[in-house]
Formats: sequence, C-alpha cells, structure tokens
Amino acid sequence: MKNRLNIVRSVVAGVSAAVASNICAADRPNIIFFLVDDYGWSETSLQIGEEQYPNNLKFRTPNMERLARRGTLLTNAYACSVSTPTRCSLMTGMNASHMHITNFCSLFKDRPSDAIGGAPGTTNPNESDIFANPEWNHNAICPVSFRNEADKNRYGLNHTTYITPMVELLRDAGYYTIHVGKAHWAPAGNPGSNPYNFGFMTQIAGSGNGHPKSYQPEDYYGNLPGNGDFSSIQNMSQYYDSGVHLCEALTLEALKTLETPIKRDEPFYLYLSHYSVHTPIQRDDRFIQRYLDAGLDENAARYASMVESMDKSLGDVLDYVDRKGIADNTVIIFYSDNGGHCLAHDKGGEPHTQNLPLREGKGSCYEGGIRVPLMFSWPGKIAPGTRINTPVINEDFFPSILEIAGVSDYHTEQTLDGQSLVKLITKGSEAVAEATRKGEITDRRQANRYVIPESVSGIDPGRPLIFHYPHQYRVEDQDDIDFLSAIRQGDWKLVYRMHTGELELYNLADDIGERNNVAEANPALVRQLAGTLSDRLRGWNAPMPTVRATGQPVAMPDRLIRN
Amino acid sequence: MKNRLNIVRSVVAGVSAAVASNICAADRPNIIFFLVDDYGWSETSLQIGEEQYPNNLKFRTPNMERLARRGTLLTNAYACSVSTPTRCSLMTGMNASHMHITNFCSLFKDRPSDAIGGAPGTTNPNESDIFANPEWNHNAICPVSFRNEADKNRYGLNHTTYITPMVELLRDAGYYTIHVGKAHWAPAGNPGSNPYNFGFMTQIAGSGNGHPKSYQPEDYYGNLPGNGDFSSIQNMSQYYDSGVHLCEALTLEALKTLETPIKRDEPFYLYLSHYSVHTPIQRDDRFIQRYLDAGLDENAARYASMVESMDKSLGDVLDYVDRKGIADNTVIIFYSDNGGHCLAHDKGGEPHTQNLPLREGKGSCYEGGIRVPLMFSWPGKIAPGTRINTPVINEDFFPSILEIAGVSDYHTEQTLDGQSLVKLITKGSEAVAEATRKGEITDRRQANRYVIPESVSGIDPGRPLIFHYPHQYRVEDQDDIDFLSAIRQGDWKLVYRMHTGELELYNLADDIGERNNVAEANPALVRQLAGTLSDRLRGWNAPMPTVRATGQPVAMPDRLIRN
Repeated sequence: MKNRLNIVRSVVAGVSAAVASNICAADRPNIIFFLVDDYGWSETSLQIGEEQYPNNLKFRTPNMERLARRGTLLTNAYACSVSTPTRCSLMTGMNASHMHITNFCSLFKDRPSDAIGGAPGTTNPNESDIFANPEWNHNAICPVSFRNEADKNRYGLNHTTYITPMVELLRDAGYYTIHVGKAHWAPAGNPGSNPYNFGFMTQIAGSGNGHPKSYQPEDYYGNLPGNGDFSSIQNMSQYYDSGVHLCEALTLEALKTLETPIKRDEPFYLYLSHYSVHTPIQRDDRFIQRYLDAGLDENAARYASMVESMDKSLGDVLDYVDRKGIADNTVIIFYSDNGGHCLAHDKGGEPHTQNLPLREGKGSCYEGGIRVPLMFSWPGKIAPGTRINTPVINEDFFPSILEIAGVSDYHTEQTLDGQSLVKLITKGSEAVAEATRKGEITDRRQANRYVIPESVSGIDPGRPLIFHYPHQYRVEDQDDIDFLSAIRQGDWKLVYRMHTGELELYNLADDIGERNNVAEANPALVRQLAGTLSDRLRGWNAPMPTVRATGQPVAMPDRLIRN
Repeated sequence: MKNRLNIVRSVVAGVSAAVASNICAADRPNIIFFLVDDYGWSETSLQIGEEQYPNNLKFRTPNMERLARRGTLLTNAYACSVSTPTRCSLMTGMNASHMHITNFCSLFKDRPSDAIGGAPGTTNPNESDIFANPEWNHNAICPVSFRNEADKNRYGLNHTTYITPMVELLRDAGYYTIHVGKAHWAPAGNPGSNPYNFGFMTQIAGSGNGHPKSYQPEDYYGNLPGNGDFSSIQNMSQYYDSGVHLCEALTLEALKTLETPIKRDEPFYLYLSHYSVHTPIQRDDRFIQRYLDAGLDENAARYASMVESMDKSLGDVLDYVDRKGIADNTVIIFYSDNGGHCLAHDKGGEPHTQNLPLREGKGSCYEGGIRVPLMFSWPGKIAPGTRINTPVINEDFFPSILEIAGVSDYHTEQTLDGQSLVKLITKGSEAVAEATRKGEITDRRQANRYVIPESVSGIDPGRPLIFHYPHQYRVEDQDDIDFLSAIRQGDWKLVYRMHTGELELYNLADDIGERNNVAEANPALVRQLAGTLSDRLRGWNAPMPTVRATGQPVAMPDRLIRN
C-alpha cells in the first residue's frame, strides 16, 4: 500500500489522504532475488540438514543464518544441475526439459556447448563415445517480441525457445526492475544475451557470460588490455584497481540502484545474481586468513573465502533494507542455480566429495547437483525461523514472484509448469510455527520431517519433480554426472542412468546420500516412478541423446522395465 | 501536463479528472539530447553558413535538414575543442577552464593524457619541447557523493572536480533518465567512468571510453577474444555478427529503452551520445556505395558513410517520436562535442582542410575546432525553420535543460557559468519568424545576420565566450592547434597563440575562415578582449603550461600588450 499511496500523495497534493487510501488497496512488496552460482547445499554454516556435516563447520555464513532466523528455510529445494536451464526456468516458469534447454548455453550463438565448444574458433566437444548429443535449444530463450523474420535473419534464432519474460510482467505492473550480475539466458549474438530484452530497466554486468574471467580488481575483472574475452566482466570499470572484489563491487552497484525506486516510492524487483561462487576460484582478501589459520589448504581456503564474501554481500543487503526502513515491505529470496561444483580441483579436496553428505555435484541429477539452499523472508507474512520440508523446484518461482507482486491475470507465450509457493511459505510456515508452539516439533530432525498438508500449503508434498540431463558434462565421461534423469516424489527418488540403462531407487528421508539403491526390493514403485518420468519427458518432447551404435534415441526409462 | 495527469488517472481512479487537471499545472516535456562525436560544422548537407560550401555538397544528412525544418538552428554554437571538457561541461554547467578540465581524459585514473599516455603500461607523452604540461584535473569529474576518505583511497580522486550532476537533478525531479553510448566523463578506475553515478537509471555502452575500438559487428565492436582493451564497447553482445553497425545498434537500444517511460507515462531524458563519427573511420555498408559512385576516395567515402549513418539514426529517432505520438511533447537537441577532426588522415583529404571554410579542427581554438552544429526542436514553443545568430556555448545546456524540464530551485556544488537558452530558442525564434513574415529576413544571409536583442532572448549577443586549450594535442607540435586560447565577443574573436605570444583578431562576420588578422589595426579592441580573456582565466585559476626555459607559467594574454 505504501508505494501507491505515496505516489498519489506526491502528485495529487490536496486530495485527502483518506480518499487516496481508500482507492489504493493492493500491497506490492519489494522483492530481492539473491542468486548464488554453483553453490552447494551443504557448503554453509547454516545447518540445513537434519545433522551437522563437516561442511557446516568448514564454511562460515553468518548472514545466511541471520536470514534463516528472519524467514523460512526450504530444506528440500531443487534446481537444475547446471546454470542456464535453471536461470531460463526462473524467467519462464517452465521445466528445463519442456523448454528443451537442458544444458548451459555456450559463449556464442548457434554453437551448442556440448557439441563444438563455446567460442568461435574453438573446438572442445563434450561428446561421448556411446551417445551422440541430442538436439536441444542451445540458443536458449528469447522474448517473443523478436519472433519476426528480420530478427531471425539478424540473430541466431533457430533452436530458441520464445517466451514471455517474468521480469517484463513485473515491469509492466509498475515494478522497478533491476539486473545486477550474471544473466546467461542465451549466448552472445542473440537478443537473450541482453538483460534489457527481458524487462529490466537497469542492467549491470549481465551478458551471455556463464562465469567471470576474473573476480579480481587488479585483473580489471578480465579486461586487462589484450586479455579480454567473452567472460570479461562489463560495466565495472569504476572498480579497476580499487581493491574491491567483484562480489563486493556488484553489491555496491546493486544497492546504489535501489536509491531511485526508494526515492520514487516504487516497488522494486532486484535480481542480484552473483557470479560467485563459480570458478575461477579466487580469494577474497578480506576473509581468507581465517581459513588458512584453520588449517585449510590454499585451494579450500580460497573457496571458503569466496563463500564468506558472498555471505557478506547478503549481510550488506540485509543491513541496507534495515537502514532504509524498508525491511518490513521487502521479500528476500536466497537461492543457488545448481549444486556445488565437485570436479573443479581448485576448490580443494577430492573430486566427487565436496557436497557431502550429498552425492556428486554440478551437472549430476544426484542430490549434490540439484539440491540447493533456499530461503524466503517476508516480515509479517512468513513465520520467522521456520523450516519447510515440502519439495520445491526452479519452475515454481515464476508464479510465486508474480503472486507476491500482486500480478495476476497475465498472458504468457509459454505454458507454465511451476506452482506458486506463496501459500506454502506463508500459511505453511505458520503451520510449522504453530506445531512448534504446540511442542510437536522440538528439534531440527522433527522440523525437517514435518509434512505440511496440501490443504494448508497448496502444494502436494508428493508431487513429482523432474530432472533431466541428456548431455555429457565434461570431455571425459563421468558416470555419476553425465546422461542422467531423475524423478523425486515424496521421499522417493528414481535415477535413470542412460549409459547403462539402470534404474536406481533411493529413499531420501533415510538415505540423503543416495548410497543404498532399493530398486530391486520395490519393483512397483520403480515402475510407477519410471512411468511418470517417461510420461513427462514424452509430453514435453524432451531432448534425448542418440545411441551411436544404433542411431536410435536412448530409450525412455519405462521401456527398461520388463513386464 | 500529459505525464502527470495520466499518472494521477491511473492511480487515483475515481478522483474526477477535473480535480486532477486543476492540481497538475507544470509541463514536463521529454528531452532527447542527440550528441555526435567529432562532427564538424560544415560536414553536412544542411547549409548552416551563409554560403554553400563544398562540404555541403559532399555529405548527405537529410534528417538534419528535416530537424532544422522542425526547429531552430543556432548558427554560432560552440563547444570545447576536445571531448571530455565539453561533456563534463554539459553535466556541470561550468566552463572547462573553471573546472580545470581542459583536455580529454585518459583511459585510466591518475594518468594525465597529455603527460604519460592513457593506458597503464604505455608511454605516449604529448609533450612540447617548449612548454611543460599544466596541472589540470585529469581525473575529470566525480559526483560529490564520492568525496569521502574511503572513496578517495579506493579510487584515483586527486585532480578531480566534484560536482552535482545535471542528470541527477532531472532524475530526482521525476525524469526517467537514460544513457546510451559514449560517456567519457572520467577515466576507468574512477566513479566518473560509471554513468550510473550521474543519475542515469538506464545505461548502455558508456564508460571511460573516448572512442570505440571498432564500429563493426564482425569485430564484436572490439571484443574479439584476446583483442579487447579499454575501447572495446560493452553491453552490445546481442549484435555481434548481426550485420548491425554500432551506430544503428545504439539507436535500436536507445529507442527500446523509451518503451518503459512511455508506458509509464513519465517524462524521459534520453542522452543518446553516439561514438560516431569519431575515429576509427569505418564504413557503414548501408550507405557507402553512393559516395564511391560519386567519386570520393575510399577514405572519404568511408567517413561520409559514417556521417550518413549518424544522420539515419537521427531520422530513426524522429520517426519513433512521430510513430509513438509523443513528438508534440518532446524536445530534441542536436549537438556535436567538438569540431571535426582535421588530422585523421583516414577521413581522406589533406590535413587541416576538412572543416573548410572553417580554420583547423578538433583540438584547435580556431573555429574548425570549436564551432559545431546545434539545433533545438520543441513543437509549439520554438518557431520552426528558424535560424538564431546569437553565440552560445556548452555550459549553457545545464541551465537550459533544467529549465525545459521545469526544474528550478536546485542546489549545485559547482558555480554555474552558463545561461539558460530557453528564452532565446522560444521568444528569440519567434522574433526571427516574425521578422521573416515582415520581410525583414528574405534570405539565408540575412537570417544568419539577424541579431536578436537581449531584451527578447535573455542572452546578450555580445557576451564573451572563453576557449582555452593549454595542451599539446598530438606528439608533434601543431602550431594552429596546440596551446591556444580564444575569446569571442559579438562578431569579434581574439586568438592567443601561447607558443609565439601572438594575439590575433578576426571579424567572424566577414571572415569566418580567420584568414585576415586585423589585430594591428584595432589595438583598443585587442586590449579589451585580451583583458576580458585574462580576467576570466585568472578568476577561474585556469591551468596554464610552464615555459621550460624559465620555469614560469605562460603569461596571460594581457601581459603581452605594451602600454
């Protein structure tokens, strides 16, 4: 209410406030979407799981803990296993397989990242000996306004998914929309590489980039003369040689842009999309000493300093909204675009172990690749300090954010797959708080297992969530990462390993690490989950690899089950 | 009126329109500042002078002619002789010498462009054997909000002029402020290299850049991997390999950003600051054939195609405001930041001749360096198709634009030197139209000589205008360019050649080419002009070079006159 009312007051001086306040009924909170890149579920001192894991002691993220105390923590939150599919899904409300965008997009248009390498002049095919890469929309997403012949000729707009962008709907509803940081909605050479095409009014440092060339001011964030490339960070010349790590520079820029909507008393949507903690793993000098002193090796300490740097940014955001007096009218969402990297050796540690207790990491449909931290805070609407067990997924944000903003009755080019989480995070969190007051929940384990019924939350805790990665992530085959699909339904998860044709079943409530395959003991459940997964993928005409030996598409999982 | 009224209507549904329209009285037109770089006064088919010059036949700029028919053409408009001083003056309302910003800023902070070359690791001193370079504010301008110890330590903020930016005042008054193209208000490493620090809400492709590395989409505008440097154009990845010349790409982006304020019914300020027609001289394929067919050599044809490309952008802007139905409420200003280049051989022709009939070009205080095209259109307020003879200068835009926007009662850190041109372009243009109707003006020569009295225009046609370039422009001394000062007062112009200590006097009404030095015949006039020029420079504590032989500053011009 505050926003509209004050516009009226400033423009219609003399019209009584009583009249104005009667006219303006809707509440339009500010929304800050704080997105972290490649950030694993367990890489935080915020203990999201039932138990305390070694990672919780290794990393220091006091501001994530602070946000969890203010809002609600979703302990079973999911993303796609790589960046572009999640980010496009946030903009479209679609499942990645439905968009046919199942892999990260490359650096330049018309160059599928899995087939010929990203940048013009390079060849770095991530190809398997067994499977040929699928057809997919490697030019990623593009607003429908570019679907005309002139633009199709000008840009690379084959293999493109045309969509109505969420941010455009927010802007058209009166939100002041701001993009800061990583975009990665489409490759360079395409309209989707330009955040302004999605409805952002302000944009800083966003492009087709999937990661920065450097986070360091002495490297000019990758812009040293003669050294620039597609991953050089733009719009940051102010901070060259300033001693300011990219993570802090983006935060300073983001908060500065908020001055305008706050002065204008307009609701804002800030998409603060950090490049951190993606590779390259580079120290933040403000924080590294603590980790070296704690005995971490150089690589691990560097990564931990990046995590704390990201957490400091979150703290700066929280301090800012408090200082400006807008905390009560600001929704903050904390999320990661996929699981933590488990192959980048410069994070320290042994490959495939960095996300423990979760199995594997980025690229994989095992939990390490897709389960991510997620929090919502919304004072007065969300019960603070609560935990929500209901599984949620990236395509849910589109309808959620529009509902939070009071935007309804909108038309989209695309068919939405997600569901609004608003009732879940408001009524659901209140139910959790009530159960806690009643003594039904007394510890973290109980909280993490408390099931909120659909009648309260609007979300069926047993709805199927679909994951699908029909690609090879790196040049060398990684059996636990490449060519996997998965479905989660309730506590159960089925993993389809396309390479071997295996179907694995895990009960996540008892086996979050996916160590104990119980498929053989539960054939009916396997059949049901494989059927649902197959039906969804078929319905979406999801990209599938081709078996080189036969020239046929890889079989859908339900075809592997003997009748 | 339209803007405010419609905000009220959309927000306060139910309050009668009669009430609302009584409350809202002020008119806030949209403003488009169309700025061209290094564009000479005679390089157009629009005949600004009294006569038709060969350049008027060489270049084709139908949209400049179209704008002149819509608005008023100021035939005696001035800028500084190089880029940064003019651009900073637009942002501050100060004379360049008063700001102590008398040369273009370099690529990186703390590196005066005249002393040590622009980019770190380079040395390219533009030093004279006779004079040592002056102290000047080579870190250029910075908003006052950065004048604290933390920022001073973080950035290069010695040799900086702290100012209140014009655009911030516009934004705070409710204007939707947009930056597209060249900024060049300060070097990289400083807050002044970031357009967002000046009050822009949207910014595209602006930085400390003085020119682009390339205008060509196949070069990715200078961003080919391994090829980037400080002059690579940012935020344009959408257009890589699209066939779209940078000039058109910036136009497309600029017009796209206008959709938002138009939808929101907010007045906008669009600063469309083309990199064209600065070096590198690169063809626009859409237009070059005409010039080759006309017999121009390759270099000259390339340059002419860039000029027509720029003119096409102006036409696209005019078409856009017509198509959107906002032409009647939109002020368009056309201006160049300094005179045309006369040394760049790749423009074609002999050096020092490109701006004929004007003497010399960029860098010089002769007319070729400082006299530039200027037009204002404002339907209903400015008499169309008129010419204004009154001399005006870059520092006049700050108060003019704020008055056009209805912004008054503002505080600035700096002391303004300019005067508002609003009465001149409205009442003054009406006086010219009236004189034409009465038959007092019947041809272009009479129009260009018609003097509008101060009582009508608010501007004394005999006020002194000060120009001062205490630098060497290039490595080799250029006698007609380096180390010059000048004053124009009425039709008279005094040029001070510091190298030789000469004072030259020209009557521009009869000798626009400054060929006939009449100083000897007019000692009293020389004394008066030298005195006024010296008083202004002393009052501003203007930067002066040092004579190497004596270690003393170069003498003020009044010291050269024998009593």
